[in-house]
Amino acid sequence: MIASTSNKQVKYVMNLRDKAKVRREEGLFIAEGLRMCRELNPKETRQVYVTEAFAGDEQNRRWLQGFSWETVSDSVMEHMAGTKTPQGVLALVRQKNWTLDSILREKPGGPAACLMVLETIQDPGNLGTILRAGEGAGITGVVMSRDTADLYNPKVIRSTMGSCLRVPFVYADDLFAALEQMKRAGLRLFAAHLQGSVPYDEEDYRGKTAFLIGNEANGLSEQAASLAHCRIRIPMAGQVESLNAAVAASVLMFEAARQRRRG
Amino acid sequence: MIASTSNKQVKYVMNLRDKAKVRREEGLFIAEGLRMCRELNPKETRQVYVTEAFAGDEQNRRWLQGFSWETVSDSVMEHMAGTKTPQGVLALVRQKNWTLDSILREKPGGPAACLMVLETIQDPGNLGTILRAGEGAGITGVVMSRDTADLYNPKVIRSTMGSCLRVPFVYADDLFAALEQMKRAGLRLFAAHLQGSVPYDEEDYRGKTAFLIGNEANGLSEQAASLAHCRIRIPMAGQVESLNAAVAASVLMFEAARQRRRG
Repeated sequence: MIASTSNKQVKYVMNLRDKAKVRREEGLFIAEGLRMCRELNPKETRQVYVTEAFAGDEQNRRWLQGFSWETVSDSVMEHMAGTKTPQGVLALVRQKNWTLDSILREKPGGPAACLMVLETIQDPGNLGTILRAGEGAGITGVVMSRDTADLYNPKVIRSTMGSCLRVPFVYADDLFAALEQMKRAGLRLFAAHLQGSVPYDEEDYRGKTAFLIGNEANGLSEQAASLAHCRIRIPMAGQVESLNAAVAASVLMFEAARQRRRG
Repeated sequence: MIASTSNKQVKYVMNLRDKAKVRREEGLFIAEGLRMCRELNPKETRQVYVTEAFAGDEQNRRWLQGFSWETVSDSVMEHMAGTKTPQGVLALVRQKNWTLDSILREKPGGPAACLMVLETIQDPGNLGTILRAGEGAGITGVVMSRDTADLYNPKVIRSTMGSCLRVPFVYADDLFAALEQMKRAGLRLFAAHLQGSVPYDEEDYRGKTAFLIGNEANGLSEQAASLAHCRIRIPMAGQVESLNAAVAASVLMFEAARQRRRG
């Protein structure tokens, strides 16, 4: 059992937790809590850390069999998790290596592509909310500009409630090239824009679709917006100028879901 | 000019900032930033505090004329605001005293009632997001159970971006009695419910409407849900069990807005 917070592995986990650069270099991220860890594939999991209480449970013990695992003291677990309510289990998981090609490849019998393209979204909370709501709305992937917040940030991972394991996502080094590739693949690109000429509910999202959402404060860059086929806006009452990015994204994604359900 | 953080007024402001009980007793809340303060009515404003830099601006000076105001040092302003980026202006504003009666009273030529009823929403961020998105969707008011987060919390006030000054809201001591009153006023009550029998987009929200949204973790109480005319659900793809409360509320409010726009 690891009982010291100066243990090498503990320090390694804390580095992964706190530093996006270390996560990227190591190709790992941290999953916490029983619910999320239950979904992990042993092949994609480097190491599982559990408290003695967790390992004492018969059912947990059976689940652990497929994994490389180790017990840690309660205080070490708290240190590693960095939250006040660690649930006694934490795993180091290999980062997903989705590509835009794989995201754009249609699955036979699957729905038409519905992608969220996020440009420079800064708030980790928004990112997590978009991923979780996106899975609920049935989107087929998320494409982000390189300077969007890190999805592997433990706060984001936690807030997605497991959606990060199920919704394919990719960071594009060149977002504009990615948008061009989507167009070649036959997607129709809709830029959410405050000066959009078309109310969002007057467009048809049943075909291959991508929604472009911009930065919380500045919106989409002109270059990204000009690559879209159409600028849509969410009509707004009162004196509200813009919506929270996650709210705007959700309104669009669930409108697409609504249209697709109605056929 | 107030330059000491041990000044009586500074301590009073900090108490208002940190304690819901003090805000309630004093009937005041704190508004920060130029954008929000510009919307204030001098009659509803007890006191404005500004930095010297703020008061040095000709335009700001003209705006200040209607108000009782005082300059404070930069460090006192930071202390009062409790944020790292105070914009040099902060005001003590009288709490709104909307009542359910006034919220239910129809304005001639105004839209049919569209209320959000929030039961035990805990996250101040969700509350602020719902108010802001709600104004954008054209809702006519928000009714909250007494144990919902405090809307006058400075974090919520900030996150509403001024919507708190424009969207009428009320805390109901007895939420169930409030729901009965809404029914008597002819509103149709829709409970957002994971086991709802009707997809949300199959109901008609063009008439007088109220949406009931429950606690983030536990949803609506059975008593609240059973007072509704109808339990609606947002159909969900993937393995998502529930949506973030602000996202769910937004999807419903903008569906109502969409239907009302289309007539």
